[in-house]
Amino acid sequence: MANQPEHIVKSYSDDLRRLRELVARMGGLAERQVADAAYVLTRRDATAAAEVAARDAPIDGLEREVESFCVRLLALRAPMAADLRFIVAAMKISQELERIGDYARNVAKRVMVIAQQPNLVGLGTFEALSQLVQRNLKDVIDALLNEDAEACRRVWASDVAVDDIYNGLFRQLLTHMMEDPRNITAATHMHFIAKNFERIGDHATNIAETVYFSITGQNLPDERPKVEAPGDLSPSDA
Amino acid sequence: MANQPEHIVKSYSDDLRRLRELVARMGGLAERQVADAAYVLTRRDATAAAEVAARDAPIDGLEREVESFCVRLLALRAPMAADLRFIVAAMKISQELERIGDYARNVAKRVMVIAQQPNLVGLGTFEALSQLVQRNLKDVIDALLNEDAEACRRVWASDVAVDDIYNGLFRQLLTHMMEDPRNITAATHMHFIAKNFERIGDHATNIAETVYFSITGQNLPDERPKVEAPGDLSPSDA
Repeated sequence: MANQPEHIVKSYSDDLRRLRELVARMGGLAERQVADAAYVLTRRDATAAAEVAARDAPIDGLEREVESFCVRLLALRAPMAADLRFIVAAMKISQELERIGDYARNVAKRVMVIAQQPNLVGLGTFEALSQLVQRNLKDVIDALLNEDAEACRRVWASDVAVDDIYNGLFRQLLTHMMEDPRNITAATHMHFIAKNFERIGDHATNIAETVYFSITGQNLPDERPKVEAPGDLSPSDA
Repeated sequence: MANQPEHIVKSYSDDLRRLRELVARMGGLAERQVADAAYVLTRRDATAAAEVAARDAPIDGLEREVESFCVRLLALRAPMAADLRFIVAAMKISQELERIGDYARNVAKRVMVIAQQPNLVGLGTFEALSQLVQRNLKDVIDALLNEDAEACRRVWASDVAVDDIYNGLFRQLLTHMMEDPRNITAATHMHFIAKNFERIGDHATNIAETVYFSITGQNLPDERPKVEAPGDLSPSDA
């Protein structure tokens, strides 16, 4: 056995562990990107933002690595039941994490444009929004590693708080634009930044659903709790 | 044989054909949602918009059907090579189509809010944007059915025109907001509508990449052509 190439000696359970580690590493990189995007926004640091914006390639590379590893496992191991669910989940999660990386990069790119603007409002609220989203992302990656279905349900339900903060920010930015037309360009970019964080939260929720299904074989309910703004469309909804 | 249950009699190639049809049907529903969202926007029809916004469930249902059908195929048929690539592609494409349905619904929800506003600008440009996106979506679903790798490459390259129109619209809406603060709320929703169409275009491009890989076993290049606005960040990029 000792002289056989590694890929033959390796056991199936080693392969599955390696897949879990690959997805966790991708999750860690995505967390890092989101944290850095939030950091450069609150510090208004255009130089650091340019570095964050340029740092998307490793996540994209890992997405391809996860997919081709999954395809190899499917072809060579003919997995069944929970293992098969896990492999399908890993592919879906890597797609979600790749999107999260995109959104974080987009935040960083917009920060490059607006960092020097004098009148940026709501930076404290942005910090609250991004921290909540970061915590959900971290919790859902932990849930994947610990196979913790209850943690998935918690993340899935807490997205309502993300929507709540986002809706407040939406109104604050509108008011700011109306007060002075010179605020419009920067505030428009900030609308999109807020939307990017809100979408990162959505993707964390999607991952929570996927991990939950992978662990339990059951779906979470179709509709998750949603904040509806009184009397009109909730902006987070649209 | 005649007395055996259908799922045993059915051949593997029937299963693969059925999977292709499921994805094509999902693609048709997504095309329809995007077309209807564009229609209610240009007609400013809030009532029809509410109907479009309520009509998302069939696409979500089909996504689950595609996934569970794929998982069954993987478990029962242990597919190899091109068949395995196609099954993995079907799962990825169904995830993209579900997102496209979400974006179309989001457009419809925002139309419900702004339909009665007096000063909506750029509706003609929105029509051009949505038609280009619709054509790309249609072409890429056709490419999937016809296994046409060249058509995938064409869709993938033509997304540059989508970005171009989107960038013009971004500037037009900013100017409109600066001219009169009363335009700000509606124009902000229109910014997000434009972004939704632009993202639908991105997802059509992602599908083109996935179909191309499924057919050829090769990836399209990492970077596709991008329009950079002169002197600053291209808004479509961020």
